[in-house]
Amino acid sequence: MNFKTIEWKNDKVILLDQRRLPSEEIYVEYSDYKSLADAIKAMVVRGAPAIGVAAAMGVALGALGVDAKNHEEFIQKMEKVCDTLLKTRPTAVNLPWAVERMKKVYLNFSDFSLPQLKQRLVNEALAIFEEDIDLCRKMGKHGASLIQSGDAILTHCNAGALATAGQGTALSVIYEAAREGKKIKVFADETRPFLQGARLTAWELQKNGIEVTLIPDVAAASLLREGHIQKVIVGADRIASNGDVANKIGTYPLALAAKTHGVPFYVVAPFSTIDWSILDGMKIPIEERPESEVTFFLNQRTAPVGVQVRNPAFDVTPYELITGIVTERGIAVQPLERNLKNLYGK
Amino acid sequence: MNFKTIEWKNDKVILLDQRRLPSEEIYVEYSDYKSLADAIKAMVVRGAPAIGVAAAMGVALGALGVDAKNHEEFIQKMEKVCDTLLKTRPTAVNLPWAVERMKKVYLNFSDFSLPQLKQRLVNEALAIFEEDIDLCRKMGKHGASLIQSGDAILTHCNAGALATAGQGTALSVIYEAAREGKKIKVFADETRPFLQGARLTAWELQKNGIEVTLIPDVAAASLLREGHIQKVIVGADRIASNGDVANKIGTYPLALAAKTHGVPFYVVAPFSTIDWSILDGMKIPIEERPESEVTFFLNQRTAPVGVQVRNPAFDVTPYELITGIVTERGIAVQPLERNLKNLYGK
Repeated sequence: MNFKTIEWKNDKVILLDQRRLPSEEIYVEYSDYKSLADAIKAMVVRGAPAIGVAAAMGVALGALGVDAKNHEEFIQKMEKVCDTLLKTRPTAVNLPWAVERMKKVYLNFSDFSLPQLKQRLVNEALAIFEEDIDLCRKMGKHGASLIQSGDAILTHCNAGALATAGQGTALSVIYEAAREGKKIKVFADETRPFLQGARLTAWELQKNGIEVTLIPDVAAASLLREGHIQKVIVGADRIASNGDVANKIGTYPLALAAKTHGVPFYVVAPFSTIDWSILDGMKIPIEERPESEVTFFLNQRTAPVGVQVRNPAFDVTPYELITGIVTERGIAVQPLERNLKNLYGK
Repeated sequence: MNFKTIEWKNDKVILLDQRRLPSEEIYVEYSDYKSLADAIKAMVVRGAPAIGVAAAMGVALGALGVDAKNHEEFIQKMEKVCDTLLKTRPTAVNLPWAVERMKKVYLNFSDFSLPQLKQRLVNEALAIFEEDIDLCRKMGKHGASLIQSGDAILTHCNAGALATAGQGTALSVIYEAAREGKKIKVFADETRPFLQGARLTAWELQKNGIEVTLIPDVAAASLLREGHIQKVIVGADRIASNGDVANKIGTYPLALAAKTHGVPFYVVAPFSTIDWSILDGMKIPIEERPESEVTFFLNQRTAPVGVQVRNPAFDVTPYELITGIVTERGIAVQPLERNLKNLYGK
């Protein structure tokens, strides 16, 4: 990739400020967990896997900043760090998954000295970071087997390198297919209201030499109907154990249109995205984002003063509409519930 | 209505500049047909019925401006006026319908003196204007019979008073239902890329005291699934004789979602919107709008330089997804093709 979404350097976290793309490529340093939590909330960094990595690094930053006399006090203070990070975004399961993994470290390594424990936490965050890079590559390689040369692929939101520490989930499939020499082109939904498709996906694909055409979200159904698209590939923020997928708002109507026109619909996500405790997608909590995302563009009003707004950030695509879920261990096809468990070894 | 979309006054056309809503309510005067044609193209005025009325007034303005020695020269010069107006927007059939009606006047009244003929053309444009007001009211009254007190109604784009000379098509149903004392609320799709829902529908409903909630287009499917919406009501830019409906891009995926969740989907349009010469919707020409509508917001880039764009302004909803078409003569239900013809007396 020709940019770095997230990095750990000299005990600081460096984020590419995604709110300023595509106009400016600006990197911001965070040296304390609170400002990093604010950055996650404000979507300086976004995308379920990247949020997970950022949260793990946030726990590590928090640990480095804790001044504690003993393990008990350290653990007490770390609980506050974890709570703050957990509260930043509610839908992506990678966030609680990563924070829980960090928690286990400071709860399980009670025989380490506090300085050793802090270093161990930094190493765990770096491990999560490295694993994410590796997972992305593996998902990409599995997914690339689904792509034929000449395919036009539609994607929604940004499930790319900007959404992970590595080369993305859905877009990793595209990068790997291109690396295998397949000739592909991508249609990117602009993804209202936050425009991740226009600002991020178009930017990163272009930056990595992939042909991309931007469309308004509402144009996808017509393109599917007219036969311009051979595959739809998206990421996921949380997957229920039956295979229902919570992803960026607009994924569900896209899946409906793909199904109607017989176009395969794939979800690409690591196993850490699966919430085995949730039996179906209707129980996944859906974040409601601020009204201003819909009523303003920058400082310009796009709607009358006082209008009411609904702005759910995610929707749930029922498993029946999904052709397959691409994971780091291979591709689960229908029946998804059984095949996801089989792949995971459950 | 608490504003005027289009008006003929002292041999001039006055348009509410819809590009400046909701921030500013500015009225602009046009005294020649060329500048009015430019205004139609630039979407100062939009909405199929309003485009028809504006084009008729454009022909009248053109006639007033023609300097001709005889009828032959007048007709020759008027052909150019009509051509210019016809070329402004390709999808709405009300535009060629209105221009053809004006043409018939100057072709059929050859016994009138030129000053008489010019006045006759002005009167025809005013008749089209008055008829549109009347049609809107009639469609509203028929459509209101479908609405129950307590309904939440979802609409897409703007098929309101801002899209007609009268009180709208889809929104006329809402205004009439409210006038009948029914308690209703409206969800308005923001309608990317031009934001007619956010800028226009939310504005005019609010201005007329109707409760309105704005949503991103991509959120509609989730709200339908969760049972928040009892009816979907939209307008139309052109209807094929089989009942297929061309309307603002995003109507088709909305109809798919409504069908999936068993929510009735109504189209409200006058008979002048039906193009009997077109057998099915796939033959309706679909306007492709400028890329900048997708890549810019005002002067701010929202996508990287050089990205390709597809920006179709309309899509086609197949007749099978439509519960009924509300016209000025009543409501055609399935089978639409036969019932539309019956209503029209064909």
